[in-house]
Amino acid sequence: MKKLTFGMVGGGQGAFIGEIHRRGVLLNDLAEMKAGCFSRSYDKSLKTAEAWSIAPERVYRTYQEMAEAEAGREDGIDFVIIVTPNVSHYEIAKCFMEHDIHVMCDKPLAMTTEQAEELQTIAKEREIQFGMTYTYTGYPIIRQAREMIRNGAIGDIVHVRVQHPEDWVIESVSPEQEKDAKLPWRFDPACVGSALCTGDLATHAEQMLVQFTGLHVKRVLAMFDTYPKYLSLETNTTVLLDLGDGIQGELWASQIAIGKPCAAGIYVIGTEGALEWNHETPSILRYTKRNGTTQLLEAGREYIYQESSRLCYASVGHHDGFNEAFGTIYRSYCEVLLAKKENREPENYTFPTIDDGVDGMRFVEACVESHKKGNVWVDVRK
Amino acid sequence: MKKLTFGMVGGGQGAFIGEIHRRGVLLNDLAEMKAGCFSRSYDKSLKTAEAWSIAPERVYRTYQEMAEAEAGREDGIDFVIIVTPNVSHYEIAKCFMEHDIHVMCDKPLAMTTEQAEELQTIAKEREIQFGMTYTYTGYPIIRQAREMIRNGAIGDIVHVRVQHPEDWVIESVSPEQEKDAKLPWRFDPACVGSALCTGDLATHAEQMLVQFTGLHVKRVLAMFDTYPKYLSLETNTTVLLDLGDGIQGELWASQIAIGKPCAAGIYVIGTEGALEWNHETPSILRYTKRNGTTQLLEAGREYIYQESSRLCYASVGHHDGFNEAFGTIYRSYCEVLLAKKENREPENYTFPTIDDGVDGMRFVEACVESHKKGNVWVDVRK
Amino acid sequence: MKKLTFGMVGGGQGAFIGEIHRRGVLLNDLAEMKAGCFSRSYDKSLKTAEAWSIAPERVYRTYQEMAEAEAGREDGIDFVIIVTPNVSHYEIAKCFMEHDIHVMCDKPLAMTTEQAEELQTIAKEREIQFGMTYTYTGYPIIRQAREMIRNGAIGDIVHVRVQHPEDWVIESVSPEQEKDAKLPWRFDPACVGSALCTGDLATHAEQMLVQFTGLHVKRVLAMFDTYPKYLSLETNTTVLLDLGDGIQGELWASQIAIGKPCAAGIYVIGTEGALEWNHETPSILRYTKRNGTTQLLEAGREYIYQESSRLCYASVGHHDGFNEAFGTIYRSYCEVLLAKKENREPENYTFPTIDDGVDGMRFVEACVESHKKGNVWVDVRK
Amino acid sequence: MKKLTFGMVGGGQGAFIGEIHRRGVLLNDLAEMKAGCFSRSYDKSLKTAEAWSIAPERVYRTYQEMAEAEAGREDGIDFVIIVTPNVSHYEIAKCFMEHDIHVMCDKPLAMTTEQAEELQTIAKEREIQFGMTYTYTGYPIIRQAREMIRNGAIGDIVHVRVQHPEDWVIESVSPEQEKDAKLPWRFDPACVGSALCTGDLATHAEQMLVQFTGLHVKRVLAMFDTYPKYLSLETNTTVLLDLGDGIQGELWASQIAIGKPCAAGIYVIGTEGALEWNHETPSILRYTKRNGTTQLLEAGREYIYQESSRLCYASVGHHDGFNEAFGTIYRSYCEVLLAKKENREPENYTFPTIDDGVDGMRFVEACVESHKKGNVWVDVRK
Repeated sequence: MKKLTFGMVGGGQGAFIGEIHRRGVLLNDLAEMKAGCFSRSYDKSLKTAEAWSIAPERVYRTYQEMAEAEAGREDGIDFVIIVTPNVSHYEIAKCFMEHDIHVMCDKPLAMTTEQAEELQTIAKEREIQFGMTYTYTGYPIIRQAREMIRNGAIGDIVHVRVQHPEDWVIESVSPEQEKDAKLPWRFDPACVGSALCTGDLATHAEQMLVQFTGLHVKRVLAMFDTYPKYLSLETNTTVLLDLGDGIQGELWASQIAIGKPCAAGIYVIGTEGALEWNHETPSILRYTKRNGTTQLLEAGREYIYQESSRLCYASVGHHDGFNEAFGTIYRSYCEVLLAKKENREPENYTFPTIDDGVDGMRFVEACVESHKKGNVWVDVRK
Repeated sequence: MKKLTFGMVGGGQGAFIGEIHRRGVLLNDLAEMKAGCFSRSYDKSLKTAEAWSIAPERVYRTYQEMAEAEAGREDGIDFVIIVTPNVSHYEIAKCFMEHDIHVMCDKPLAMTTEQAEELQTIAKEREIQFGMTYTYTGYPIIRQAREMIRNGAIGDIVHVRVQHPEDWVIESVSPEQEKDAKLPWRFDPACVGSALCTGDLATHAEQMLVQFTGLHVKRVLAMFDTYPKYLSLETNTTVLLDLGDGIQGELWASQIAIGKPCAAGIYVIGTEGALEWNHETPSILRYTKRNGTTQLLEAGREYIYQESSRLCYASVGHHDGFNEAFGTIYRSYCEVLLAKKENREPENYTFPTIDDGVDGMRFVEACVESHKKGNVWVDVRK
Repeated sequence: MKKLTFGMVGGGQGAFIGEIHRRGVLLNDLAEMKAGCFSRSYDKSLKTAEAWSIAPERVYRTYQEMAEAEAGREDGIDFVIIVTPNVSHYEIAKCFMEHDIHVMCDKPLAMTTEQAEELQTIAKEREIQFGMTYTYTGYPIIRQAREMIRNGAIGDIVHVRVQHPEDWVIESVSPEQEKDAKLPWRFDPACVGSALCTGDLATHAEQMLVQFTGLHVKRVLAMFDTYPKYLSLETNTTVLLDLGDGIQGELWASQIAIGKPCAAGIYVIGTEGALEWNHETPSILRYTKRNGTTQLLEAGREYIYQESSRLCYASVGHHDGFNEAFGTIYRSYCEVLLAKKENREPENYTFPTIDDGVDGMRFVEACVESHKKGNVWVDVRK
Repeated sequence: MKKLTFGMVGGGQGAFIGEIHRRGVLLNDLAEMKAGCFSRSYDKSLKTAEAWSIAPERVYRTYQEMAEAEAGREDGIDFVIIVTPNVSHYEIAKCFMEHDIHVMCDKPLAMTTEQAEELQTIAKEREIQFGMTYTYTGYPIIRQAREMIRNGAIGDIVHVRVQHPEDWVIESVSPEQEKDAKLPWRFDPACVGSALCTGDLATHAEQMLVQFTGLHVKRVLAMFDTYPKYLSLETNTTVLLDLGDGIQGELWASQIAIGKPCAAGIYVIGTEGALEWNHETPSILRYTKRNGTTQLLEAGREYIYQESSRLCYASVGHHDGFNEAFGTIYRSYCEVLLAKKENREPENYTFPTIDDGVDGMRFVEACVESHKKGNVWVDVRK
C-alpha cells in the first residue's frame, strides 16, 4: 500500500512531545517519517534522525532549508508536523504552506489571532490540509457522542458544561521558587503569550465542546485566578459561554486543581437526554434519555457507530492503553536483551518469562484435573 | 544508538494480534522488525512485509527456513515474536531456540505441560531470553505494587483475590449457533487444548498474582461452569488457591460475565495494609494501611517508585491511552490526505483543523479581554 | 433524661416533607412532638395527630391559636417546626417568636430579604434559637471537612467550586403540559418568589459552601437558563462567586440535569491541598495534600474528628441517608437548646441558623439582579 | 390508624443495636414500643424505658416474666424484638412463641441447626409470624432486582457471585491484644458458636443471594482463613456454592478486608443479561442485557417497580441509609402482621423469615464441616 511521507520540525531527543506525535503516526502505518529539522542544533538533529532511521541527507539545519528542499524533491514529504515552542508555530507553518506542503501543527496555532487568521487565509488559498492536535478529542468515544448528537439522541442542546482541570503548575512550582521569584520560561508571557491556563488548557476544553457538540462559542465572560500569586498570568479560568441560539454553558480549566491530574470532561443537556464523558474513564460515554436509565456506552461495542469504533486500537474492554501495556513488556524485554548483548548489567526490569509460561500450563492442567475429580485439591506440579 | 532486530512468525494482515505486538515494540525504539514469516500463504506474507517495510529477501515461506536463514546471517534477528495459534507455539519456539535465537511468545506457552517443560529446559541450556506476553502485567502501576509489597508496605500477605472476567464468549455466540451447534474453531478442544476459559483468561489472572505479589500457586481446587451448554469446554472458572506458607486465595475468570468486558483486578490483604488494582482504572492503585485512609496512587506521580514511573509513556494524569488519542487524530488526518492524493472521496473522518486553531486563538483573546474589563461579555471575533 | 417538646405547622398527611422532618427529630430521642397545626383542614390535622399520637387538645385550627395556647401552657412546646409552603414562613415564624417559642424553619426563610431581616432582628432581640434545615450540610463528613479546613489541612483557600444539579423539573414536566401551558403551582412566581432553581437548589449549594469552608459570598455574577421555555422562571443557574480576600469560585445548580437526580458536590482548592465531597457517596471525603496521594476519608473511622463522628447513626461503612442528614441537624439544634434550657455550656455542635437563612435570601436576590442586568457583578447586600 | 405494639428483649442503653432496631420501627409509624426487658440489670432497663417513654409497669426483670405478663394483658404486645447476644436467641424466641407472641429476631437465629429447626416447628404450629433482620436485604433496590429476575429480565440464572467483606476485626484487634492473647468475648466460640466470620457475615451474603435471586444453597465447599493467628475461629470465608439445577456460584465474606468497611455486593449472570449491586452505592442497580449497554437503575425512579419504590423513604437521588434498610424490613413485617390482624390479604411485601434463619444456620454448619474435612462438598442439611 502506498503510504504518505512526512517530516517534523522540532521534537528532537529530550522533547517528550516529538516522540508522542511520532508514535501517533506510527500506530496507523499510513505514513512514514522521511525528513526533519528536529533541533536548532544540527548535531542533535542528526542524532534524533539516526534514532528514527531518517536518512542524513534529509536532516536539515533550518526549517526554511527543509521546506525548500523537500518541496523540490520528487519524493518530498507530503506533510510536516510542527512541534516547536508556541512562539515559532506561525512562521514555520507559513513557510511550509508557501511551499505547498500540508501541515499538522501542535496547539496553539500562533501567538495572536492576527497571525492565526493569516495562516488560515494561506491555507484556504493554497488548499493546504492543515490539522491541529487537540489531543483529547481523539478518544474514539468522542466521535460516538458527536454522531449521536447529530442523529438527535438528546434532542436540541439546552446547556453545556465542559472542564479541563489539571494540577501540574501547583504541583511543580515549589515554595523555593516562590521565594526567589525565579520561574521556568513556560510561565513567561513573552514565551506563552497573553494567557497561561486559558491558552494551555481552556483551549482543550473549548475544542472538546466543538468536536463533541458541533456548537461554537459566540461570546465569553471570563474570570481568572492567579495562584501562586507571584505569577503574572492566570492559572485557573472560569468562563460563561454564549453558544448561540440561546444556548449557554460554562467552561472551567485549571492548572492548580490539586488531586485532579487531568480530569477533562463534558456534560451536555438536551431536550430529550444528556451525554457525559470524563477523561478518567475515557472509553465510557454516559447517556441518559429523558425519563430513562443512565446507560454506559463502551468504545468498540457492537452498538457503537462505525465512525467511532473503527478508531479503536484495542478490542472492546481494553482501553487504548492496552498497546502500551504490551509496550512496557517489550521495553523491559529489550532493555535486558540489549544489556546482555552489550555485556552490561541490565537495570532492574522485569517481564514474564518462560518459567511463568510453564507455571501457567501447570496451573491450567491442575485446574482441569481438580474440576474433573469433583473439585478436590490438586498440586500444581513443580 | 544500536537497536535490536527482530522477526515475527504469524501475525499477518488481518491478524489483529500481530499488529498489537508490533506496536508494542515500536513504542520503544529499541528494536526494528527485519524479517518475518507472517502467514502460511507466502503471498500474504509478502504483502504484510510490504506494509511493514520488511525487505522481501527476509520474508520466508516457513518458520524453519526463517530460523535457519536468520541464524546464518551476520545481521540476523536478535529475537523472534511468535503469534501463531496456540497449537504451534511449541514447535516454533523450539526451532528458533535451537538456532540460538531469543524468543518472545504469546501466551499460552504450549498445549501441554510436557511441551512447556521441554521448552524451558532448552531455554536454560542455551541461555535463551524467553519472554511471554501476559499483557495486563505490563501496566506501570503493577510494578509499583510489586515494589511496595517487597518493601513491606502491607506487611506479610494474608489473603489474595484475583479476577479476570470478560464477556466475549457470551456476547459473540449467538442463539443461531446454539441451534446449529456450529462453532468457531476457537471453541474446539483440538485447537485450544483441554481448557477454554482457564487457559484463555485464568492464566492472565494467575500471572497477575505472580507479578503483583511475588507469590506462586502451590495447589488449586477448581470449579468450572459451561455456558452456553452446547460448548464442550468451560467458560467460567472459580479456583481456590493455596499459595504456600498458609496463605490462601481465590481466582475467578469468566468469558460470560455480561457487562464486564475486561474487569481484571487483584486485591491483596496483608498484616499491615491492603493493595487493590482494577483494569477499569489501570493507572490507579488503591492502598490502605491498617487503620489508615485509603490512598489512590497514580502512575507517574512524584511519589511513585522509579521502577514503575519510567514505564509510563504519557505524563501523569494521562492514561497510556493518550498515545492512541494522538493516533486517531493522525489516522483521520492521513486517511483524508491519502484520499485527496489518490483523488478518492475520503470517508467520513474528522479532525481538528486550522479553523479550530483560529477559533482557539480568538477564544483566548476574548477571555483575556473579558477578564481585564472586569468580567464582561466579549464577542469571540468572527 | 429530660427531653424537649416540639410542635409542627404544616406537614400533614400526604406532605412528604413533614414526615421527613419528624423522622429527623425521632432519630435522636432528644425531643417529642406534642402539638401541631398540620393543615388548614382541621379534620386532616386531627387525622395526622392521631397517626403521630398527639393529644387532640393540642391540635389547633390555626397557627396563631397554637402559638398562643402553647405559650400559655406550663408544658408548652419548646420549639416549632415550620414546613408550610414558602409564602407563609415569614408570618408563622414571626408569630411563634413573638410568643417566645424557638423555631426550626424549612428553607427558604421568607419571600424577600426584607422579611428575612425582620425575622433576624426579632430572633436576636428575643434570644430565639432559630435553625434552618439546609439538609445536605447535615452529612457527618461535612463537619469533618469544616474542622479540617479550620485546622489548616489545605492551607489558605484559593478557589471553590460547588454544585447542586437535580433533574426533577425536566423529568416531571411532560410535553403535554408544554402544549397546554398548564403548570403546577410550584412553578408559579406568586408561590415560589422571584427565582425558581436559584431559590430551590442554588441556596443549598450556597449553604454547603458556607458550612464546608466557613467563607461567605460577597458578590455574584449570575447567568440563568430557562427550559422548558414556557416556564417564566429559571431552571438552571450558573454563578461566578466573589468570596472576599481575592478568593473566587463558581456555583452551578440545575433542575434539568438529566441523569443527575441529586449530584450535589463541592471542591475546594487550598494552597496546601484540596478537599472534595459528592452526594453520590455521602460518607466519603476526598483529601489530597499538595504533592501527595488522594486519600478517601470515611465517616465514622478512628481518624475522623469527634465533632464529625459523633453525628453518625450507623457504624463505619454503613451509610447514613437523607433522613439521617435531617437527623444530625435536629440533633445539633436540640443539643444546643437542651444545654441552654439547663444552663449548661453546649458542646461544639453547629447547624444552619437564621443568619444563614438571611444570607440565602440575599444571595438569591443578588443573583436575580445580576441576571436581569445582563450578567454583571452585584453585591450580596449586608 | 390502628398501630401494632411491640416489646424488646435486650438492646438497653449502650447497646448500639437496640437503638438501630427501634429506629427501624419508628421510621414507619406502624408500631409503638410498649414493653421491654432491656437488660439483666433492672435499673438499667428502667432507665432505657424512661428514655424511650415506656411505662414502668411494662418493664420486666426477666424475659419469661415479660412474655407471661404481656400475653395476659388485653393490650399485650403484638410482637417482640430479640436483640440479645446470639447465645440466648433460642430460649427467648421459644418462650415468646409459646405465649403466642410474634417475633422479630436478630440474626443468627440460634446457636445450632437443631435449635433453629425446633423454633421453626413451633412457629409453624402456632402460626407465629417470625422475621429475621438480615439488614442488607432491606435496601429497596434489592426488591427491584428480585422482581426483575422473576420477570425474566436476565433469562435463566447461570452463575452467582456474592460477597460481604468488612474490616472490623483486623481494624479493632490491636497488636497489644495479640501479645497478651486477651480477646473480647465476641471472638470466643462459647459466645459466638462454631464459626466467626461465617456466622457474622457470610450469612448476610447467603441471605442476600436468597432475597436477590430466589435461589437457595444446596451444597457448599468452604475454605477458611484465620488472621490474626491467635484467634481460634476464622475471619475470612470463601465458599463454592451449588445452587441446584446446575447453577454454581461463589461467596466471600471477610472481617479482615482492609480498606473495605462494608463492601457487600452481588453479581448474577443470566442467559439474557446480568444484574449487579454494591453496598457502596446502595440505591443503584447495574443491569446489562446480553449485547446491550450497562444501565444504572436508581431507586425510586418512575421506571422502578412499585414493590421496590414504595419502600424508599427519600425521594429519588436521595439516599436511604442503614437505618432505612432496617426500616424497610420492619415496614414489610408490620404491614403483613397488620393485615393478618385485620383479616386482610396482605400486599406483596417480603422479608426474611424463620425459614431463612434456619437455612442460615444450616449454611454455617455445612461450611464449618466442609472446612474441617479439608474443603470438600457438604450438603446443606434439609
